[in-house]
Amino acid sequence: MKNSVLIIAFISIMATSCCNNRPQEDFIRTQDAIENIMSRKSVRKYLPKPVEEEKVQILLKAGMAAPSGKDVRPWEFVVVTERSLLDTLAEALPYAKMLRQAPLAIVVCGDTAKSSYWYLDCSAAAENILLAAEALKLGAVWTAAYPYDDRMAVVKKETGLPENILPLCVIPVGYPAIPHSPKNKYDETKIHKNRWR
Amino acid sequence: MKNSVLIIAFISIMATSCCNNRPQEDFIRTQDAIENIMSRKSVRKYLPKPVEEEKVQILLKAGMAAPSGKDVRPWEFVVVTERSLLDTLAEALPYAKMLRQAPLAIVVCGDTAKSSYWYLDCSAAAENILLAAEALKLGAVWTAAYPYDDRMAVVKKETGLPENILPLCVIPVGYPAIPHSPKNKYDETKIHKNRWR
Repeated sequence: MKNSVLIIAFISIMATSCCNNRPQEDFIRTQDAIENIMSRKSVRKYLPKPVEEEKVQILLKAGMAAPSGKDVRPWEFVVVTERSLLDTLAEALPYAKMLRQAPLAIVVCGDTAKSSYWYLDCSAAAENILLAAEALKLGAVWTAAYPYDDRMAVVKKETGLPENILPLCVIPVGYPAIPHSPKNKYDETKIHKNRWR
Repeated sequence: MKNSVLIIAFISIMATSCCNNRPQEDFIRTQDAIENIMSRKSVRKYLPKPVEEEKVQILLKAGMAAPSGKDVRPWEFVVVTERSLLDTLAEALPYAKMLRQAPLAIVVCGDTAKSSYWYLDCSAAAENILLAAEALKLGAVWTAAYPYDDRMAVVKKETGLPENILPLCVIPVGYPAIPHSPKNKYDETKIHKNRWR
């Protein structure tokens, strides 16, 4: 009897000590944050498997959690899952051919009427989406629309963007078809202490 | 005796089941990746406590783990810890007065000779640094240099940047002096399904 109490006490202590750095949140449990940043990679081949609605929501929430100048949040997101639209974009965009296999793309756009440097805020939002995709074991890649007039025109036309909305990038998303390793891009020569040298 | 064995077995099971989603890596263990993205916030008040060299290294590694167009990695980083230089920048930059209290600033710069859209790649790098700071329980905030000619001129002069290197932003970093809560910026009206509406 005494030992049963001890066992229960041990279980409680272990459960608390293992999990007390992770508050109960409504997020899916994923990988370690620093590990996530270091292991993000560009994924261009996807399985023919749709991305769950719950995960799409998390990607979009991650995008909107980015910082923005004067907190104006100039971003807008077009979530593309229509097969014919994905194929049309693949056809017309020179560096987004992988959209043909992708079950999903998120077009990160900015409102030029809200900010003259929307593309900086939207780049932070796009990076958040790429990191969240990695955390959710999805694969994604930034394919540029801005600053190329021809690519922006294609995306604007096909997704029906209003005059003041410009696309920064099209991010194909899916479950990776093959394993990928992150590149080690650390380069000490890019670090300057106090002044350039 | 039998019960002691049972207790040890329970401890082992709990320890394994709680921690088996976190592989052994050479990174500092931090928070969950999605939670990290959602809880990043702008921190503008810091304790008078230096940031450990090990953490500065992780911030820089995080910056260099960002994606870049054609993988050219046009970023450069000036790590400022010299008190007089931090104070000079605080004096001259209108929205970076918090540099007076900050023990550290990372100036994220781009090489205009390597990329004509360096500021997009460098925005992704800056966001990685902000997220890594959050993960390491540091506070940080993006203060803009680009696209403002006057602010860029100040940073270029004080940190001795060559002609082809432009500063995107100055990120003061330190241990937060007061607790901060992240904003909930999720806004369903910014999501468009397949086409704008």
